Amino acid sequence: MHVPATLVRGGTSKCWLFDQSALPTTVDTTAQDLEGLLVNAYGAADPVQLDGVGGATPTTSKAAVVRASDAPGIDVDYLFGQVGIGVRRVEWGSNCGNCATAIALWAVARGLVPVTGDRTRVVLRNTNTGAVLEAEVDTTGGRVHEFGTRTVPGTRAGGVAVGLTFLDPAGRTTGSVTPTGRALDELTFDGQPAAATMVDAGAPMVLLDAAGIGLSGVESLAEMRDLVAPLREVRHAASLRMGLSRPGDTPDDAVPKVGIVGAPAAYRTSLGDEVAAEDYDVSVRMLSMNAPHPAIGLTSAVGVAVAALLDGSVVRAATGPVLRIGTPAGVVAVTCRDVVGSRPRRVTVERAARILCEADLLVPDPLPA
Amino acid sequence: MHVPATLVRGGTSKCWLFDQSALPTTVDTTAQDLEGLLVNAYGAADPVQLDGVGGATPTTSKAAVVRASDAPGIDVDYLFGQVGIGVRRVEWGSNCGNCATAIALWAVARGLVPVTGDRTRVVLRNTNTGAVLEAEVDTTGGRVHEFGTRTVPGTRAGGVAVGLTFLDPAGRTTGSVTPTGRALDELTFDGQPAAATMVDAGAPMVLLDAAGIGLSGVESLAEMRDLVAPLREVRHAASLRMGLSRPGDTPDDAVPKVGIVGAPAAYRTSLGDEVAAEDYDVSVRMLSMNAPHPAIGLTSAVGVAVAALLDGSVVRAATGPVLRIGTPAGVVAVTCRDVVGSRPRRVTVERAARILCEADLLVPDPLPA
Repeated sequence: MHVPATLVRGGTSKCWLFDQSALPTTVDTTAQDLEGLLVNAYGAADPVQLDGVGGATPTTSKAAVVRASDAPGIDVDYLFGQVGIGVRRVEWGSNCGNCATAIALWAVARGLVPVTGDRTRVVLRNTNTGAVLEAEVDTTGGRVHEFGTRTVPGTRAGGVAVGLTFLDPAGRTTGSVTPTGRALDELTFDGQPAAATMVDAGAPMVLLDAAGIGLSGVESLAEMRDLVAPLREVRHAASLRMGLSRPGDTPDDAVPKVGIVGAPAAYRTSLGDEVAAEDYDVSVRMLSMNAPHPAIGLTSAVGVAVAALLDGSVVRAATGPVLRIGTPAGVVAVTCRDVVGSRPRRVTVERAARILCEADLLVPDPLPA
Repeated sequence: MHVPATLVRGGTSKCWLFDQSALPTTVDTTAQDLEGLLVNAYGAADPVQLDGVGGATPTTSKAAVVRASDAPGIDVDYLFGQVGIGVRRVEWGSNCGNCATAIALWAVARGLVPVTGDRTRVVLRNTNTGAVLEAEVDTTGGRVHEFGTRTVPGTRAGGVAVGLTFLDPAGRTTGSVTPTGRALDELTFDGQPAAATMVDAGAPMVLLDAAGIGLSGVESLAEMRDLVAPLREVRHAASLRMGLSRPGDTPDDAVPKVGIVGAPAAYRTSLGDEVAAEDYDVSVRMLSMNAPHPAIGLTSAVGVAVAALLDGSVVRAATGPVLRIGTPAGVVAVTCRDVVGSRPRRVTVERAARILCEADLLVPDPLPA
């Protein structure tokens, strides 16, 4: 079948966007039925996604199905899918903030949301998690821009400026910002006790105190590769503790997000830039599925910022509205506003997005299940 | 700028095809000037080709600019480019047989070559090397097919059957099938002497006798990774011996192709299938740029088959019209016909191709050099 789609870079992710209203009428738009379409469109069965349009890395094998929303105050609804690499499966359990910036730019470019002066606001709802996000797309001069000069840490490529605000992100998945009821717990990392904060904000996530397990938080991506297996075990243990799964469930490799946090220290980014300890507030190294994350997912950045607001959490950073997170790609600044207790109503990151291509995909019909 | 392009899988490669007549008029179509366009379209600067449509692996970061040919007996001319991954550069020195099958299918689908019954012949010329190829595209029922069931070793994905014949492939680059004047030479591999055959057929290539340097020819891709550095030195030494470069030139990572050959032995393919020693005639492990090749390039397969026709070469296989080459992806059969001396006039491989998407690429204008 032929399926129209648009490839958009949002920050450090590439995402194919599917206009739900333009999908072939034979495609049922429930997640389960979209799975066969995406698996075949991306060539997910193959480790280099040979027979499809996927990018074959976790940050370049993402998809979203987007539609105009009928909910009051929401412009567009989107269903996010993390498409498998070498496995005929799509993970539907999470959200992607970078993709939300891509969707905002696309919604404006496509005319789903009318341009309103120099900045155009797009309110998005992620239907996987219920998260509501507010994007502000640069439409300087009252028009849509295809190219721009705003950069984000992790790439020197320019894009159109998009500010992304997570609205009331705490407790979206589990109902509580601290699903275990505590800001600090103990988990096991590689056989040793590890101080852990499990938080639900942006995404459910588990963060380990790096210093307590002999790590720094400024590990290189190569060093992080050796930590994937024990961090995966931490993810699965945390999933049970946070009530995201039950004993006997197949372990999920997407949720919760898992990472380590440490004190700021000098390091060199993946692009080779020097970062000094005083340039940021907390060092973070995350996994993306079962690989070291080359930067940080925006939903994870929100989680780290909200964890920093919790007394006694493993994120011990100077409190203030802006938290500067040191990631392998560089420093990502997160701004928390309208904080009530430890729950911010608005959490904002400044990003950039670019439409890479408009396409008509030729997708083999899904094999019968 | 907006640039139309089509992503096509040919065998185990993905290649974006650019119709030269549809390129923006501002684009000069010499290789040097296309380089900026491709680098920006693919996002080549980044190791995951984040800001573009590249696939970020050697077999999925390929491009060809195609036009109707004005040469007698040739249907289409194409310029092949191996687009850099994490480097703002395109290699223009080689050909890609898998991409030729993609171009043949595309030329028929686009109407550049009219359908002629159940099989449609397309004669292609690779303008990088002067190679001429004859493709036979399955047009059963007198029509173009978008999907098919033919598979090639290395993927279970089906495609449209395309037979690809290299016409008189020997000596295309250097003028001689044996550029050193001998079928057997000695080079140095990791400090030890190595029996080597340097051949120019399909592509210039250097093959080492695996047994003489303590290897088997059925090494896994993981084992091959440890051989990349010494094989790269062999490539550079062979380049000088074959007259492809001169002392002091920047080493080329694409030409000549480099690999090791050994006796058939049982092994398991990358898809997990068992291959017995009696299933094939010669084991081959190649590099693709500076990584282990997951299968074998078709131009390399031609070179191996022609080397097998040379008395005294390192390819010591039963002579006959069909040579079965054991690659990490499975067995590739190559048929040599109309052999005059040791030079076959026709070398054929059976392949499959599939159009993955038709697209309009949004390409940032190249930075001033």
